[in-house]
Amino acid sequence: MAHINLPEGLPGIRGPMAFRPETAKPLNELAEVLLRSENSLSRGERELIATYVSSLNDCFYCQNTHGGIAQHYLQCSIDYIDSVKKNFESTDLSDKLKALLSIAASVQKSGKHVKPEQIEKAKSLGATDIEIHDTVLIAAAFCMFNRYVDGLATWAPQDRNIYVERGPRRAAEGYLDFDLYK
Amino acid sequence: MAHINLPEGLPGIRGPMAFRPETAKPLNELAEVLLRSENSLSRGERELIATYVSSLNDCFYCQNTHGGIAQHYLQCSIDYIDSVKKNFESTDLSDKLKALLSIAASVQKSGKHVKPEQIEKAKSLGATDIEIHDTVLIAAAFCMFNRYVDGLATWAPQDRNIYVERGPRRAAEGYLDFDLYK
Repeated sequence: MAHINLPEGLPGIRGPMAFRPETAKPLNELAEVLLRSENSLSRGERELIATYVSSLNDCFYCQNTHGGIAQHYLQCSIDYIDSVKKNFESTDLSDKLKALLSIAASVQKSGKHVKPEQIEKAKSLGATDIEIHDTVLIAAAFCMFNRYVDGLATWAPQDRNIYVERGPRRAAEGYLDFDLYK
Repeated sequence: MAHINLPEGLPGIRGPMAFRPETAKPLNELAEVLLRSENSLSRGERELIATYVSSLNDCFYCQNTHGGIAQHYLQCSIDYIDSVKKNFESTDLSDKLKALLSIAASVQKSGKHVKPEQIEKAKSLGATDIEIHDTVLIAAAFCMFNRYVDGLATWAPQDRNIYVERGPRRAAEGYLDFDLYK
């Protein structure tokens, strides 16, 4: 049961967003800009960074919601998403994305964990300042979203296939459809 | 030196916000709603929660910026702010605010650290669902802001008095004055 009296039947972040639309608005606008707006990092790559950070924070709802969306964009299997979470270095992701995921993993611990060597490596593999900025902010933002979802003890479906099935619809809808939260 | 090429002379979060106004907009709107909009928690109480979480995350810029604003609203000394950071239980803050700070401290570790007993205690001391929600989201949001500021290795003045002197102006300006970030 959630820690506060949230609207029933809405999973994960949707409950608190319906409860408090005043804060839902900037939160959704942030997600839209970070994960969907024009960017040299693809939407799939950005959703994968969000998924990975959410798995490091052990947030079931966020890692599966964004994992389902990433899977849709990247046209990959749930096993592939899991292999990224488990050990992204062993996957066939680009070296640049691996360097960005390493930065995201450091941000998940704390901002101070990001080392100049990690930044230099990402830059040497072609990462731009905007890509590094957005990686840091996506990782930081999911340290917020994950704590918001779990800190209120929200409810989430436990069948992972549900999230995979919903991925394409969520990818199409984006994060600004406020009717979803009413 | 910051990890990426940020506009010069802007301390802390102002550098990355000027670098990336697209994300600054929802970030500032979130801060405005959480810390300044109409609420049964005073602006001073909310800035104190933000300050406390930023100190737990060891973010020098955020804990001093928001500490300076809290000090202004609460009309207290820098020593009082420091005593809250060090051991809020020993201060003369209300029992309700202490219960909310305890929840914020748990959120700083992870959402899953928030225990039903902490919520029950806060409710028994008069905390409403909105106050608990906002405490969790303020704490979560500062886990983002702190990582954003330190994850990009931004610059910040080291003289703490500067932040105290700026508190009243920052309190008056609020978080939506985008000219500050240009």
